[in-house]
Amino acid sequence: METEQDSGDVTRAHSLAREIFAGVANKWALLIINVLGARTLRFTELRDEIEGISHKMLTQTLRGLERDGVVHRTVHATVPPRVEYRLTGAGAELLATVNGMCAWTRRHLDGIEAARRRFDARDG
Amino acid sequence: METEQDSGDVTRAHSLAREIFAGVANKWALLIINVLGARTLRFTELRDEIEGISHKMLTQTLRGLERDGVVHRTVHATVPPRVEYRLTGAGAELLATVNGMCAWTRRHLDGIEAARRRFDARDG
Repeated sequence: METEQDSGDVTRAHSLAREIFAGVANKWALLIINVLGARTLRFTELRDEIEGISHKMLTQTLRGLERDGVVHRTVHATVPPRVEYRLTGAGAELLATVNGMCAWTRRHLDGIEAARRRFDARDG
Repeated sequence: METEQDSGDVTRAHSLAREIFAGVANKWALLIINVLGARTLRFTELRDEIEGISHKMLTQTLRGLERDGVVHRTVHATVPPRVEYRLTGAGAELLATVNGMCAWTRRHLDGIEAARRRFDARDG
């Protein structure tokens, strides 16, 4: 039986925590949170900001983030309707985490490139 | 042409930064970093700690993290050889980020469950 403590433990399979964690712990969700941290964006702007994301993946990921209350979607009653995405309060709380991961990537770019060369020379 | 600034920008497709970011910005890598943050672990211990991870996914993800210099793999010359995994210095720098994401998940468990119910009642 799942106890209350289990339900908040991301290491437990099939827990609500694991499910919610997986919704944000993926590159597309984190990149969306990263760019929405700077400003409110329309769908096409998001697609332009996050190079390489497919229409389908952006749609799916935004829908999941909206469902989880991380991203807020506003439809403006213009013709045609203007649809904008912004972070919710809960979403904005992830910014420090995301920025930390981006900063880590930049900081270790050269070190990781070197580590890869060593690894590939040994195991490749 | 890719400039030096581009190469450190995770929003650029095919950049080294995006590739390295994607290596850690996924649930399995982050869960591995999370549990190795507590202690050095053997393969079977890691598999037990991270419920639901397949043998293949754990092998692949560990190999990627080792290649990127995030995880260090030690083979002890015992019979049979004992293989242990621990975080490197660069890997340990991700712990605050990972812990922040786990804490965020726990903090918003009830709020996200409620947000999902509202979303599903409206769009489902």
